[in-house]
Amino acid sequence: MYPKNAWYVACTPDEIADKPLGRQICGEKMVFYRGHEGKVAAVEDFCPHRGAPLSLGYVENGNLVCGYHGLVMGGDGKTVEMPGQRVRGFPCNKTFAVQERYGFIWVWPGDQALADPALIHHLEWAENDEWAYGGGLFHIQCDYRLMIDNLMDLTHETYVHASSIGQKEIDEAPPVTTVEGDEVVTARHMENIMAPPFWRMALRGNNLADDVPVDRWQICRFTPPSHVLIEVGVAHAGNGGYHAAPQFKASSIVVDFITPETETSIWYFWGMARHFQPQDDALTASIREGQGKIFSEDLEMLERQQRNLLDHPQRNLLKLNIDAGGVQSRRVLERWIAREREAQAGLIASSHQPQQVEQRS
Amino acid sequence: MYPKNAWYVACTPDEIADKPLGRQICGEKMVFYRGHEGKVAAVEDFCPHRGAPLSLGYVENGNLVCGYHGLVMGGDGKTVEMPGQRVRGFPCNKTFAVQERYGFIWVWPGDQALADPALIHHLEWAENDEWAYGGGLFHIQCDYRLMIDNLMDLTHETYVHASSIGQKEIDEAPPVTTVEGDEVVTARHMENIMAPPFWRMALRGNNLADDVPVDRWQICRFTPPSHVLIEVGVAHAGNGGYHAAPQFKASSIVVDFITPETETSIWYFWGMARHFQPQDDALTASIREGQGKIFSEDLEMLERQQRNLLDHPQRNLLKLNIDAGGVQSRRVLERWIAREREAQAGLIASSHQPQQVEQRS
Amino acid sequence: MYPKNAWYVACTPDEIADKPLGRQICGEKMVFYRGHEGKVAAVEDFCPHRGAPLSLGYVENGNLVCGYHGLVMGGDGKTVEMPGQRVRGFPCNKTFAVQERYGFIWVWPGDQALADPALIHHLEWAENDEWAYGGGLFHIQCDYRLMIDNLMDLTHETYVHASSIGQKEIDEAPPVTTVEGDEVVTARHMENIMAPPFWRMALRGNNLADDVPVDRWQICRFTPPSHVLIEVGVAHAGNGGYHAAPQFKASSIVVDFITPETETSIWYFWGMARHFQPQDDALTASIREGQGKIFSEDLEMLERQQRNLLDHPQRNLLKLNIDAGGVQSRRVLERWIAREREAQAGLIASSHQPQQVEQRS
Repeated sequence: MYPKNAWYVACTPDEIADKPLGRQICGEKMVFYRGHEGKVAAVEDFCPHRGAPLSLGYVENGNLVCGYHGLVMGGDGKTVEMPGQRVRGFPCNKTFAVQERYGFIWVWPGDQALADPALIHHLEWAENDEWAYGGGLFHIQCDYRLMIDNLMDLTHETYVHASSIGQKEIDEAPPVTTVEGDEVVTARHMENIMAPPFWRMALRGNNLADDVPVDRWQICRFTPPSHVLIEVGVAHAGNGGYHAAPQFKASSIVVDFITPETETSIWYFWGMARHFQPQDDALTASIREGQGKIFSEDLEMLERQQRNLLDHPQRNLLKLNIDAGGVQSRRVLERWIAREREAQAGLIASSHQPQQVEQRS
Repeated sequence: MYPKNAWYVACTPDEIADKPLGRQICGEKMVFYRGHEGKVAAVEDFCPHRGAPLSLGYVENGNLVCGYHGLVMGGDGKTVEMPGQRVRGFPCNKTFAVQERYGFIWVWPGDQALADPALIHHLEWAENDEWAYGGGLFHIQCDYRLMIDNLMDLTHETYVHASSIGQKEIDEAPPVTTVEGDEVVTARHMENIMAPPFWRMALRGNNLADDVPVDRWQICRFTPPSHVLIEVGVAHAGNGGYHAAPQFKASSIVVDFITPETETSIWYFWGMARHFQPQDDALTASIREGQGKIFSEDLEMLERQQRNLLDHPQRNLLKLNIDAGGVQSRRVLERWIAREREAQAGLIASSHQPQQVEQRS
Repeated sequence: MYPKNAWYVACTPDEIADKPLGRQICGEKMVFYRGHEGKVAAVEDFCPHRGAPLSLGYVENGNLVCGYHGLVMGGDGKTVEMPGQRVRGFPCNKTFAVQERYGFIWVWPGDQALADPALIHHLEWAENDEWAYGGGLFHIQCDYRLMIDNLMDLTHETYVHASSIGQKEIDEAPPVTTVEGDEVVTARHMENIMAPPFWRMALRGNNLADDVPVDRWQICRFTPPSHVLIEVGVAHAGNGGYHAAPQFKASSIVVDFITPETETSIWYFWGMARHFQPQDDALTASIREGQGKIFSEDLEMLERQQRNLLDHPQRNLLKLNIDAGGVQSRRVLERWIAREREAQAGLIASSHQPQQVEQRS
């Protein structure tokens, strides 16, 4: 239950730097590699010769060479050559539209004809020198929608991340969820509170006092298929909060790209784009390390929640105000999935349409 | 195929001393914790909010707090409160009758209305200062009835536990099985034999010579649902054996509480209640260690027997005289299970009974 | 999809030297042990008493003793005795025809009546002092036919074993496949090439220069059910290649006995029979170690190929000239399997044949 006609983050450039990468995305086993002129390609991870995974092979002259018997696969899914063989009649491999942008490799697991690169969301922080980025990747055994729920309801910080970013005041500030087209926004503002440990570190990292009251904000933005970008930050209290001038605040965007592997497992690309001290690489590293530790606290919860849900298929979950972000995001996804199905049904119907017969009397 | 309307050992107090314990019993996922006034409670391990396992949470003011978004669950299965929420309409969680007694937490996985604490068997050794107890817990992948079979036929000691409690004389003394109501007793008496290593240690522990002939006994008592208490001991030969005065013997009760997790896995609580030198804690520890090693020898056998039986569902097993204890125990269980089903069928039938229509002529 | 009426390698003598060996072969769980007069026996690994695996027991007086309750199983599948029991009525265990020959234990998993020891292939290298042998065993999760394919198409050496036995010239010398009865032979000859690292070591081991051009050959011989013996070697160029006199060459037979465990897993007995310096045990050891490393390179490829094929059941694989050896071997196997089915169907039919009724008028 995920849209296939959409751009997902597939991997990061370092994952294909030395050798091809086999990765299953939306149920499709793909191999990613850097081909001709350094352009990334993605084809089915299945050698048409004997079914070996092409990801166990290597790249030569911009083509993928099967590591079993040397079939040379092109980025277009056609076999280029094979030692001692005429390959013209070889069956074609499925290929997938791929784009490299913003420091990520993006893939479109569905119909390639629809894969418009302009549909990749603009990510200002990835291009602007005023920002710094650090992140990582987790493989988690849960439905991608459980991770969207998680990120659209940050009250969990108080419980799952009690010692770093959680604080009782989150529970006390009800969030406001709004939907505009396909974007779902859940915002929470906390005023005149003391910053929790992670944000004290961030304040110090921006050369700001960490022992005075702050205004804190969390603005979660879901966009389909499964991107959750969260504006987070603290400003010394009384300077306008979210709108405070840069010298009073430490602010970032929590970056979450959630890529379904199967119905119940995901590749979770997490990170933080920071809008202060972008040149401070040590700060980037220490934030990345801190975030990695914090975000790993969600794993057991999500995986065991997933197993509980599989064991109790008949139980309805609650949809409280704090869940509005997740609930609305799922509605957007349902619309996307329904639209995709209709389009496919239409295609099938039109391909079976009876030909019109001209009748003359 | 286990009775659900019965008291099973769920856990020991140390397992819930620091945090809640999630444990599946008779197919039900439960969370155990010490609630109000230190009373143990057991509720479904499923948060009504989003399905997270409550066992990942913590206890506060006698209630269980979900570790995901802070829902506060009461021991009655009702949500007590949740930050920022009105909880009156929240669905109830299943709860389970629990009793703490004799150093164990007991649970009744079935109909709570039938859970009479008086049905927990009296365990004299657990209350009387003349006895000492030590034990442990194994998690084993086998049908609970295979463990009952194991314990009701101690001829396996000669083979599985050859170096500790086994001896050829066990095979040579045919056991006698009797059934009285729901209790099945299989007794074996061996006279004028040399004690095997474990019992030599026990004799020395009771300041008795270990190099003289002894009379040895094993009296296995099964009571449903799955308790096997085995009176075992040796006495210097010629002093009355089982009935010998305390100064001539070393005697104990092997304690086995077998709690089904699923149809093919169990929580096995084993231990030994000793009726000599009860104050000698070092002896308790050394007996516990010895018993742990000996009983762990059964694990591979039982798990591989289970797999063999699953692979050969059509094969009938033999029911020899030595198997009488297990065979009779299974008959008692079948009666219990049948009774439980009839009661349930009756309930369903009565709830569907057509209303009587008054007819007047 | 494997013949059951055939001789497979079950194990090596060292595997049953100290205790019985439980091993599943062609779907049958068997226990192998050395019984009366040292003769190897194989019976179902299932104790007729309570289903325990007999392989957890021990051998006494040439019989297998169950390690659970002491049932004594004979090599004929009949219970010999059991402490305190009359065993005449005990059900029989299935037994399997076994032969010890050529340093291997061979088993016939099908109908014992058909198990003619004369059907075991003659292995000259195993009996002749001019040869030395070393080998090992791998447990691999793949259909046995994928391993046959692998061994009948050695172009994979160039890719999978690039640093040891692979070389580009293999790809350039097209193989010739011939079928004679049930034997399939795929031969490749390469002339006037430099030997790859493994063969340089072999040349040095036979006191021959390793830096001069050689002729190299690979002659793969498949015989059903799943034996692949490959004549391999190099000779100093211009001395007749395969037919060169012994002083010019280093030649061996790669030995592959592939025994199905299930439809998708195998016991793979690999080794090398060497026709030079047979007394040099250090050479045997170093070749064995080298071969073990090289052959382990195939494991990941085969297991991931297997998973790929299971995931894409609808995809047809290619059958190129290099695949002819595997393709022809599969044809032989299909004939064997069909014949086996027909024989079985015939047996069933004849047992259901209506009795002839004599009619007199």
